[in-house]
Amino acid sequence: MAKESFVEQIADIEKDFPQWYTDVVIKTKLVDYGPVKGTMVIRPYGYAIWENIQTELNKRFKQNGYENAYFPLLIPMSFFTKEAEHVEGFAPEVAVVTHAGGEELTEPLAIRPTSETIIGNMYSKWLQSYRELPIRINQWANIMRWEKTTRPFLRTSEFLWHEGHSAFATAEEAEEETAKMLDLYKEFAENCLALPVICGRKTEKEKFAGAVATYGMEAMMKDGKSLQSGTTHFLGRNFAKAFEIQFLDKDGSHKFAYTMSFGLSTRLIGALIMAHGDQRGLVLPPVVAPVQVVIVPIAAKKGGVLEKCAELKEKLEKAGVRVKLDDSDNSPGWKFNEWEMKGVPLRIELGPRDIEEGNALIFRRDTLEKTAYSLVGLENSVSDLLKSVQSDMLEAARVRRDNRIVYATDLDGILKGVDGGNFVKAGWCGCRECEDKVKAYAQATSRVFAEGESAESCAICGKKAERVIIFARAY
Amino acid sequence: MAKESFVEQIADIEKDFPQWYTDVVIKTKLVDYGPVKGTMVIRPYGYAIWENIQTELNKRFKQNGYENAYFPLLIPMSFFTKEAEHVEGFAPEVAVVTHAGGEELTEPLAIRPTSETIIGNMYSKWLQSYRELPIRINQWANIMRWEKTTRPFLRTSEFLWHEGHSAFATAEEAEEETAKMLDLYKEFAENCLALPVICGRKTEKEKFAGAVATYGMEAMMKDGKSLQSGTTHFLGRNFAKAFEIQFLDKDGSHKFAYTMSFGLSTRLIGALIMAHGDQRGLVLPPVVAPVQVVIVPIAAKKGGVLEKCAELKEKLEKAGVRVKLDDSDNSPGWKFNEWEMKGVPLRIELGPRDIEEGNALIFRRDTLEKTAYSLVGLENSVSDLLKSVQSDMLEAARVRRDNRIVYATDLDGILKGVDGGNFVKAGWCGCRECEDKVKAYAQATSRVFAEGESAESCAICGKKAERVIIFARAY
Repeated sequence: MAKESFVEQIADIEKDFPQWYTDVVIKTKLVDYGPVKGTMVIRPYGYAIWENIQTELNKRFKQNGYENAYFPLLIPMSFFTKEAEHVEGFAPEVAVVTHAGGEELTEPLAIRPTSETIIGNMYSKWLQSYRELPIRINQWANIMRWEKTTRPFLRTSEFLWHEGHSAFATAEEAEEETAKMLDLYKEFAENCLALPVICGRKTEKEKFAGAVATYGMEAMMKDGKSLQSGTTHFLGRNFAKAFEIQFLDKDGSHKFAYTMSFGLSTRLIGALIMAHGDQRGLVLPPVVAPVQVVIVPIAAKKGGVLEKCAELKEKLEKAGVRVKLDDSDNSPGWKFNEWEMKGVPLRIELGPRDIEEGNALIFRRDTLEKTAYSLVGLENSVSDLLKSVQSDMLEAARVRRDNRIVYATDLDGILKGVDGGNFVKAGWCGCRECEDKVKAYAQATSRVFAEGESAESCAICGKKAERVIIFARAY
Repeated sequence: MAKESFVEQIADIEKDFPQWYTDVVIKTKLVDYGPVKGTMVIRPYGYAIWENIQTELNKRFKQNGYENAYFPLLIPMSFFTKEAEHVEGFAPEVAVVTHAGGEELTEPLAIRPTSETIIGNMYSKWLQSYRELPIRINQWANIMRWEKTTRPFLRTSEFLWHEGHSAFATAEEAEEETAKMLDLYKEFAENCLALPVICGRKTEKEKFAGAVATYGMEAMMKDGKSLQSGTTHFLGRNFAKAFEIQFLDKDGSHKFAYTMSFGLSTRLIGALIMAHGDQRGLVLPPVVAPVQVVIVPIAAKKGGVLEKCAELKEKLEKAGVRVKLDDSDNSPGWKFNEWEMKGVPLRIELGPRDIEEGNALIFRRDTLEKTAYSLVGLENSVSDLLKSVQSDMLEAARVRRDNRIVYATDLDGILKGVDGGNFVKAGWCGCRECEDKVKAYAQATSRVFAEGESAESCAICGKKAERVIIFARAY
């Protein structure tokens, strides 16, 4: 591979978005294919993004009373059959352990596709009295769902996620928590990932298997498709009844608890890439970027340049910036290309003339602008710039998205809308048949209800509309 | 359960150490049994210890050039057969996935019992040139080894761990890294866990399946038994040859890399418990204690007490202390018992009289001493005390251990030594038969070589001694 030309090896983002995605995730060393079909290796650069996501979410979970714990990977198959909808939804995707320790197991064990059942089983053991409610526990774990077609981050047999599981004395509290965690997700997605998400309730067809109601947040990718980036589920007493999660209430009677769960996975890294990336590669929002600033020395062999760069690096580190000094033998041009491809938010160029003039050039990855800043107090300029990049990225993504939300009043309108790479809002009567027709006719699915909006009639059957749905093609 | 009497429900530590252990881990809610035999649920209080361990280790790994990544859980069974010793060691313990997505798999998949094979496979794909060496990657993951007899933390079918895997151009570098990571473990164990560990090389019998040499760190539990708390392995070119981890060297020829690996698991939490615990329950070292200080209000209903406690809590939090204010309805005596059982290093008692006198009583969990400290600058006293507790716990454990290291010159001496709850140093000729005899006669195993020590003759067969071995009964 010729060193200077690797950027051209990324497929055209306008002409072949799927290939562009694959090229970017592989070439930037975010991820690689594992030896077993459908699995992925999350490489250090990708994993560092996930660690930053974990840090930000852990902070927020803790503020909301969540504690982390760890539940077993293997779940008895019989647990799944206890909740009728749940088994129907997950059984087809489960990976099954039948042998262990050289012997055949008496009961086959499922590798968790989600943990409501095993956590429900433990809650039933732990919970005694209303005094112990609410329970709020979160788990960071690997999950396995056997998928036919897979793509790194977006859909893989194994992925990493967090799953929060809580239990309450009343339906109201559990519903409130379901809404609150959706708000938490939205705030996190906007402020940390610069993703302007649309949140709302999902249809019966799209809900989590076993839930009373599922709420999702949807992000628009640059090809106009939607990526479900997180979901919260009000589970009512479905799992409490299946697993006997009961408590002795104040009035002396035993009652079933109300539970909810919520989860978000390494898919989000895929969302980041497809919502912000461009022809040069990744564009990462500063809050989760593994490297926020790269310093590239110009004419590095000239006296004092490397020293000044090292000094600057130390200063920025002290200011809490994740900074890298690229003092490799590669040419500046090569370094520019590489770090742009890797989506580093800011690049500082520092050469003999800059030092003489007391300036440094700062390149913004998001806007591709290059501006001179004084070396005096540069750490403050950098800190301000990182904040600007973060908020400007959110705003730019919001404008892109808002320009791509259209309304439709019939099936053809929905098809035309999604063909044009839009989210399409349309009235819906509430029946499954109409939802299925959209899928068949326009290869689009119901993402979430457009909260607070109403329509006269169903765009599919013409009957009275119950809700406005956002339809889109989706990852 | 009568509220005041739960502490008495812990078995006598002198008379029944195994039951004491089980009582402590269950009653303090560190852990619970999972529904599948041999699995455990790490509850929030236990998981918080693990998170503190992770934070401390991540800091150290990063300083040594390690980056975190994530490799797939499922490994093709055929990978294991590529390294002859490795398959022999691990195949009997492997859990196997035979079905997934509703179909039988064409090749059965192992749930990772360790990741040398799959990481070796990826390194062979990634590594091209000597310029890319060394590679230093660490993974935090769940691991499965199907065990016949299990105990929470100590031996479970599934556990959590970290595993570091690196590759070098030369044997010297890989050996140096193996020694360096053992030093890292020792420093971590001493300074964070207050565990005075003995580090050294292991015999052929006790080494990792597939390694050239394994080094371990052994910690003495209060019953005199040893707990292997971490191991580092020099793998030579065994895995490089099996998985074709090759690079183009400066001289233009292709060479196999030298690799090493090292790992440490949630077993360590078991070590913490059994090295420091006492009749009242846990005694946790401050660096990894989930709660470092608990504030217990005395006569909480009297005016100003709770306010003063809350004020103090805030002050300590600002000073970076993990502090809990127990403002529940339980009696102070009950709270004392509970937090002592949970091993919180410091308890601050604050009542109306203390406030009047401008003092607070501080109870040290490790020494059981209670002393009055001025409320003025109490955060500094607390911070100093936490440091003292940390170093005093290490020193106390060191004294306990050193009093229990004996020498033996024959098999009876070894038996008598381990029967008395000691580590036994004895000369060893170097042959497997003698090692096996110790196991049969004294139910003790070779832990590590006593580095720098020598003996005239083998305590078992009387022939010339090659090494001094530390024998012990072990977890």
